[in-house]
This record gives sequence, structure tokens and C-alpha cells, in this order.
Amino acid sequence: MLIIKVGGGKGVNWDYIVEDLVRVIKKKKVIIVHGANAKRDEVAAKLGHPTKVITSPSGVQSVFTDEKAIEIFLMVYSGLVNKQLVAKLQSSAINAVGLSGVDGKLWEGQRKKSILAKDGNKTKLVANSLTGKVEKINTKLLKLLIDNGFVPVICPPAISYEGEIINSDTDWAIAMMSKILTIDEIIFLFEAPGMMRDLENKKTLIKKIKRNEIDKLMRFARGRMKKKMIAVKYALNYGVKKIYFGDGRIKNPISSAFAGRGTVIS
Amino acid sequence: MLIIKVGGGKGVNWDYIVEDLVRVIKKKKVIIVHGANAKRDEVAAKLGHPTKVITSPSGVQSVFTDEKAIEIFLMVYSGLVNKQLVAKLQSSAINAVGLSGVDGKLWEGQRKKSILAKDGNKTKLVANSLTGKVEKINTKLLKLLIDNGFVPVICPPAISYEGEIINSDTDWAIAMMSKILTIDEIIFLFEAPGMMRDLENKKTLIKKIKRNEIDKLMRFARGRMKKKMIAVKYALNYGVKKIYFGDGRIKNPISSAFAGRGTVIS
Repeated sequence: MLIIKVGGGKGVNWDYIVEDLVRVIKKKKVIIVHGANAKRDEVAAKLGHPTKVITSPSGVQSVFTDEKAIEIFLMVYSGLVNKQLVAKLQSSAINAVGLSGVDGKLWEGQRKKSILAKDGNKTKLVANSLTGKVEKINTKLLKLLIDNGFVPVICPPAISYEGEIINSDTDWAIAMMSKILTIDEIIFLFEAPGMMRDLENKKTLIKKIKRNEIDKLMRFARGRMKKKMIAVKYALNYGVKKIYFGDGRIKNPISSAFAGRGTVIS
Repeated sequence: MLIIKVGGGKGVNWDYIVEDLVRVIKKKKVIIVHGANAKRDEVAAKLGHPTKVITSPSGVQSVFTDEKAIEIFLMVYSGLVNKQLVAKLQSSAINAVGLSGVDGKLWEGQRKKSILAKDGNKTKLVANSLTGKVEKINTKLLKLLIDNGFVPVICPPAISYEGEIINSDTDWAIAMMSKILTIDEIIFLFEAPGMMRDLENKKTLIKKIKRNEIDKLMRFARGRMKKKMIAVKYALNYGVKKIYFGDGRIKNPISSAFAGRGTVIS
């Protein structure tokens, strides 16, 4: 089985992705996972609650999610972007079903009510956080859909063990899915040609990464790429054979990633 | 099978509904369908695109849905309200899965690109409408979920035959579902005790309606109640045995409706 994760950046071209997917899906069972961060930020600003980013003591950035933020998150991820994508796939005769991590408790985890964040040189405790880490995948729903010819289109948020809606790292949830499902390959499509030593310089694309080189290359991972690399490391440990990073802005993005035009990690 | 339709009014108390549902669901297979109009209007106003209501030449009111309006619709119905409801049900150990009419093309129909609307004493043609009437229910997904112990929580919008996302009358979609699924009973919960001769006077509650009295009583149906009564008439013709209108604001709303404290139509 193949997971295709498509980032929520503004430049990602869904028309190209769906066009390519129509071919790929004839040969492989596919789960689609998507983000929607650009659209989320746009709507959040319009609603007067702009997205707040916080940085953990170890330097990992994440979005601060309080009750207002999770409402906007639900609206844009599970509502607007997920359903527009499902309609686009249906128009191409792909029998898509949109799900959030909340549905059928697909992505379940522990809520972290307060989190540590850098505040200049100090570290402060931020309360009222509706975030958490996915620990449990309830596969029954997922398998039911896949075995019956539906294509799941999944997005965060997740659900806590207490039934709270929580924002959670999507790439980590993908790693958790690869632990419990038989996932052979994962493709990550985003707004870059692949993993770069220098984001500003196309020529620094790292074409191949071996599993044991990941830690060494972590210093080139900026922002969200850090989390992605951690998820990738776990997914490989859980039995995924190949992971591809590819450009979500170009024509034939999936075939190009498979052909090794981005970064191949194995 | 029982369909519970819960209106999207501000006064509807979901805590009471879920509390009651926990008991009901032990005895019956249930499909939940919901609205979200109050929340939709609130978010639409905040986003600077307030909801526009138009009136058809025959006097039936509906929301005018252009591209911006359908985006807000998706955000509030399929995103915010649907997922918050699914989480609430999951917290009460009801294995809910949220779906829109777009997912698995559950609610499919013909788009009506332009519609007639009253403009004072004149009738004008309104273009760019993303609306339509549900004509086809793709039951495979629904049956799969129900047969495997999941509780579908469905909301509009629907999808057109061309893959466009279209706003459509929810009560009519329910009538269409009763045509193809074995639905014994439907409960409609909303912000009134039931069908009233005079909305302002509680004492005018109509406790029982026979199928052949519906046309005669249509003159008491105001606004959206008109559409509901049309859907009810069709649902009864399609084999539904009893339809209940009940108050969605009170404790034990489902049991009360079953006990005949609202309007019972048969």
C-alpha cells in the first residue's frame, strides 16, 4: 500500500497531483493524507485569529492551538480543503471518502494540555493547548474502506483518549499508520524539489539518503522538515521500504518522485 | 433503521440529544443527519459574506449559494459542526463517522445553475448558483459503515453529476435516502415543539397528522417547514412508517418525540 502525503502549501498543484494519481491508482492501493496550512492561515487571519507559531526548547516549530484555533483548523482542513479535494477526485472517477482523525477515532492520542515554548532566551509553559501526539490508529474503518474500493482522504485533527479534538503532527500520524498497516512506500509532496542542503539552492538537492544517514543529515532540516525526518526514520523502522520526497508544484509529481527526481530514502 | 435529523438552529441542545441517543442506539440502527445554519450565518457574517436568502416564485425560501458561500458552507457544516459532533458522540462511546454528501458521492444530483427568485413583485433569474436537488443516493458506503457498527453522521453539501459541490435541501435528501434504504422512522428535531398552527402559540401544536392531511395542513407551514412537509410526504410514500417532529432544545428530545410529545405523522 502507498501513502501519498500532500502538504498544504499554496504552491501545491492539486490538478497535477490528481491527473497523475489516476494512473497510479490503477496499480496500487492508495491512502491520501493532506495538509492545508496556507489556507488555514488565510482564513485564520480573516477571522481575526491569526495563526500563532511557537518553538519548542529543542527548536521544533509548531502551531499553537487553542479552542478558537482548533475551530478554524476543523473548518479549513476537514471542511473546506478535504471536501474540495474529495470532489476533485470524484470528478476523476476516484471514489474518495474524506476523513479526519476524529472520525471512527482514526487517529487517537494523548492530549498535552500545556507545552513548553521558547520566549526569547527563556522557556515558558503555554497552557490550554489542544494538541497531542497520535499513538493509536484505529484501522478498522480504514481497512473497511480500502478493501471495498474507496480511497481514504485523511487530514488532521486527531482525537484524544478523552474525546477532545486535538491538533497533531500529520507526519507522525503517518509513521504510526505505517506501524500498523502494511505500507510499502510513502510519497511526501511539498513546495520544494526534495530535501535540500540549502533551501535557496536547487543544486543542493539530496537525491538519495540511506536510513543510517538520517541523523547526520538532520542539521539540514529546517522548520517542519525536522518533524518530517523524525517521522521518516520511524516509518522506515516500522517496515516501510522506500520514502520519496517530491515537488508538489510540478506536472506528474507522483511519477517524478517515483523516478527519483526528488529525494529517495531507503 | 431510524434517521435522526437535527436542525442547525442555535437553541438545539446537542448534549441532551447525545445523552438520549446513547440509550436509543442500543436498540436501533441510527443514521444522524444534521444542519448548521445558525453557525454558518455567524461565520459567513464574520468573513464578510453574509448569508443571502432568496424566495422562489412559489414562496419557498432558500439560501443563495455562490462559490464563496459554498466554501463557508463546507467549512461550517462538514468541518466545524460535523467533526465537533463526531467527537461528542465518540466521547459517549458512539462510534461516529462524519460524512458529507460529497464523500463517496453519497448524495448526488443535478446542479441547477440558475434559479428563479422573487425580487419585490418581479421574478428574476439568479445565475452562478451552486445548488441542486439530490436524486441519487450511493448507499454502498452507508451500508458498509452501518453493517460494521459505525454510526454515520451526515451533512450537506451534495455533489453534482459533474463533480461540483452543491448545496441541496437536506430534508429532501433524507426523503431520497428513505426511498433506497429501509427506514422505518424519521425524527426531526428543531427549535419548536413540533408542527404548529401558529408558531407563536405553543397550544397550537398539531399532535397527529395523517398522511392524507398533509396537503391540507401545508398552509400552516412557514419558511423551511414547507420543504420539510414536502420531504415528509415523499418519505411516507417511500415506505417510512412514522415520522416525528420534536423539540431539539429539551431534555430527552428523542424519547419525547417517540412518546408523541411533538407531532407524529403516519
